[in-house]
Amino acid sequence: MRMVDIIMDKRDGKKLSQEEIDFVITGYTDGSIPDYQMSAFLMATYFTDMTDEEITYLTMAMSQSGDMIDLSEINGIKVDKHSTGGVGDTTTLVLAPLVASVGAAVAKMSGRGLGHTGGTLDKLEAIPGFEVEIQNDQFIKIVNESHVAVAGQSGDLAPADKKIYALRDVTSTVDSIPLIASSIMSKKIASGADAIVLDVTTGDGAFMKNLEDAERLAHTMVRIGKLANRQTMAIISDMSQPLGNAIGNANEIQEAIDALRGNGPEDLMEMVYVLGSQMVVLAEKAATLEEARKMLEESISSGKALNKFKEMVANQGGNPDVVDHPELLPQAKYTFELPAKESGVISKMVADQIGVAAMLLGAGRRTKEDVIDYAVGLNLNKKVGDAVQEGESLVTIYSNREDIEDVKKVLYDNIFISESGIEPKLIHEIITE
Amino acid sequence: MRMVDIIMDKRDGKKLSQEEIDFVITGYTDGSIPDYQMSAFLMATYFTDMTDEEITYLTMAMSQSGDMIDLSEINGIKVDKHSTGGVGDTTTLVLAPLVASVGAAVAKMSGRGLGHTGGTLDKLEAIPGFEVEIQNDQFIKIVNESHVAVAGQSGDLAPADKKIYALRDVTSTVDSIPLIASSIMSKKIASGADAIVLDVTTGDGAFMKNLEDAERLAHTMVRIGKLANRQTMAIISDMSQPLGNAIGNANEIQEAIDALRGNGPEDLMEMVYVLGSQMVVLAEKAATLEEARKMLEESISSGKALNKFKEMVANQGGNPDVVDHPELLPQAKYTFELPAKESGVISKMVADQIGVAAMLLGAGRRTKEDVIDYAVGLNLNKKVGDAVQEGESLVTIYSNREDIEDVKKVLYDNIFISESGIEPKLIHEIITE
Repeated sequence: MRMVDIIMDKRDGKKLSQEEIDFVITGYTDGSIPDYQMSAFLMATYFTDMTDEEITYLTMAMSQSGDMIDLSEINGIKVDKHSTGGVGDTTTLVLAPLVASVGAAVAKMSGRGLGHTGGTLDKLEAIPGFEVEIQNDQFIKIVNESHVAVAGQSGDLAPADKKIYALRDVTSTVDSIPLIASSIMSKKIASGADAIVLDVTTGDGAFMKNLEDAERLAHTMVRIGKLANRQTMAIISDMSQPLGNAIGNANEIQEAIDALRGNGPEDLMEMVYVLGSQMVVLAEKAATLEEARKMLEESISSGKALNKFKEMVANQGGNPDVVDHPELLPQAKYTFELPAKESGVISKMVADQIGVAAMLLGAGRRTKEDVIDYAVGLNLNKKVGDAVQEGESLVTIYSNREDIEDVKKVLYDNIFISESGIEPKLIHEIITE
Repeated sequence: MRMVDIIMDKRDGKKLSQEEIDFVITGYTDGSIPDYQMSAFLMATYFTDMTDEEITYLTMAMSQSGDMIDLSEINGIKVDKHSTGGVGDTTTLVLAPLVASVGAAVAKMSGRGLGHTGGTLDKLEAIPGFEVEIQNDQFIKIVNESHVAVAGQSGDLAPADKKIYALRDVTSTVDSIPLIASSIMSKKIASGADAIVLDVTTGDGAFMKNLEDAERLAHTMVRIGKLANRQTMAIISDMSQPLGNAIGNANEIQEAIDALRGNGPEDLMEMVYVLGSQMVVLAEKAATLEEARKMLEESISSGKALNKFKEMVANQGGNPDVVDHPELLPQAKYTFELPAKESGVISKMVADQIGVAAMLLGAGRRTKEDVIDYAVGLNLNKKVGDAVQEGESLVTIYSNREDIEDVKKVLYDNIFISESGIEPKLIHEIITE
């Protein structure tokens, strides 16, 4: 087998065999296939696409390029959730204890990565004492006893994906559905989940700018998940404004606690119920999405969900008193309000740019070396479709520095007020095949 | 300017500016743009193509990436000829003196390269004493006095093309019209010609397997030649069998001498007249192709053309007596005939494979280090469409080794005899725009 022939076959739209795709991924991971052949292959794939079978071979080869996490000692169906990227995405913090509270196993291994705000691990570390570095046997023990644990990734997960992603980034081959789908799914499969719920975001601030592309990506991932023997569902959600109101770390923990009490922002609550219902069904704890939703609503109203959160915090060494004493969470030195410059209706809030404003405060990492400030962040007091009076606060800013003119400028530049505005549709579609 | 953005623009089918194309070629030549970005760019070009303007920018940037040969001290219009690849292609040996004999300036700089038989330089070196390494001022003096000289390339011509071609070869981006056209034309333009006649070969043994692709390549090169201020014409010729009868070095010199006497094989004579007429018109020595052809025919019948050949040989230190004493050319030790195994009509002679047979004898280079044996080669006694009796000689083989079973096998495998066969059309089309 020669890489040059495989490139030609892909270029000519031929379907590659599992052996050929394994050859490409193994060779690229071990360095015997050079970058210049791989980038030609990626560009050919961009143009000629791949069948679901080919994407599945690619996904499996990438997931097997490094360590495969073995969760087989955990009883029941392990269900995981992945979002293709959002801002103010508190959902995982709510979903993990909520879904566990109705009996599904949530064994979540997370990476850290870069982002406008910290990842799930960083947010949990805002809770005094919370420990995400857990030994494997301890992790398994906790999930078996309590149905939920969130830990840092150990080992070398899907190194082929890391190497390919870095190459795609500099060769304009990022936005290719087969390459995006295999990148996401290879990591999910390597991290050991039996069932996967996907949140494919769409809109200005998201990876998929239009609904059509988001639909294709969602369908593709659901199909390859199934071909790889992972039960998979997806929703397509709108990311034309941040989800929920909190954007930061400690304040997102606070928002998650509110949501587990049933008092979260309306859009966040809806997202949690829709994604959570899918997770519960895939974990075979309910037969239908309707039944699952009822179970989740009851768990919240009865306090079971919030108790599961306390239990999760305590299991991992954190102080569960933060639930009833929010002052135990890190607090920023300064609080500022961002007054509206005119009256009207909020017509647009550019999600990723509002994320940038939070990062400027210190809530996220620009480089791997940056240290996150858990206390800082933003709270949106208005969302798209809300009426606002001149002088009314649009955003509350939690900061540890006094001069925040840069942050205010980014916010003013990306929050638009006009004569009218309508609340965007939150969930466009639920995709099960 | 960033290469990643230029790749994206090409990928998305946008037209690149001259500045962008210059950036790509300059950066790739000096190493600041890595192979992996260039190969992605080449694959994107394969899929989205280029406009004639873009190909012209690319061609000019590549030709200016190294030395540009200055022939301005030579009087008149310097006309050059290029073939996209053939077997038994004696035409240059005939055309150079023939066209010069009617007053056009032929200042030919050739490379050596690899091939089934030697290049034009190697063939001329089969003439005892012939010298192709001439100083620049001497070269110019000879052409001004005698209208013709053929010399080895000095300097570093179109290094960008060399580097890009090597990358295309391993990334399956060879057969792309804009890339082929710019590769050929960049070298022609760097070598200083004012006018260019192109012979685009098509058929089984050629680069362009079908007529449609050959037409597109020919039209593209003619248009970019004109955009680059070089008068350009092209023919599309058939390479489904070797041109002429001789395949080798000394025997091709002999065939060229025969042709200059008017006794060359019919297909070679026709090709010489068609290409030669274009060269004469582009050199402004005749107003029409018909007039030019008449001049060439007269030059051959009067002996003027053959005298010009003798003059060319003498000017470059060679022994002109080879013209009247063919025994002065290198002679092979052994002569073998290849008898037909059955009676019938020749239906097919796979040109490039017959070239391989000549290379096996030592007539061409497989690697740069190989030394050419001028004496060896093949003479085709039958061509496609000819009737043949069992036992009649198909090919005469000139060899310096006794055991030539390998050569015979290749020939038998690639010369087909059936009940019928028709002479292929030699020249498909003449393209002037």
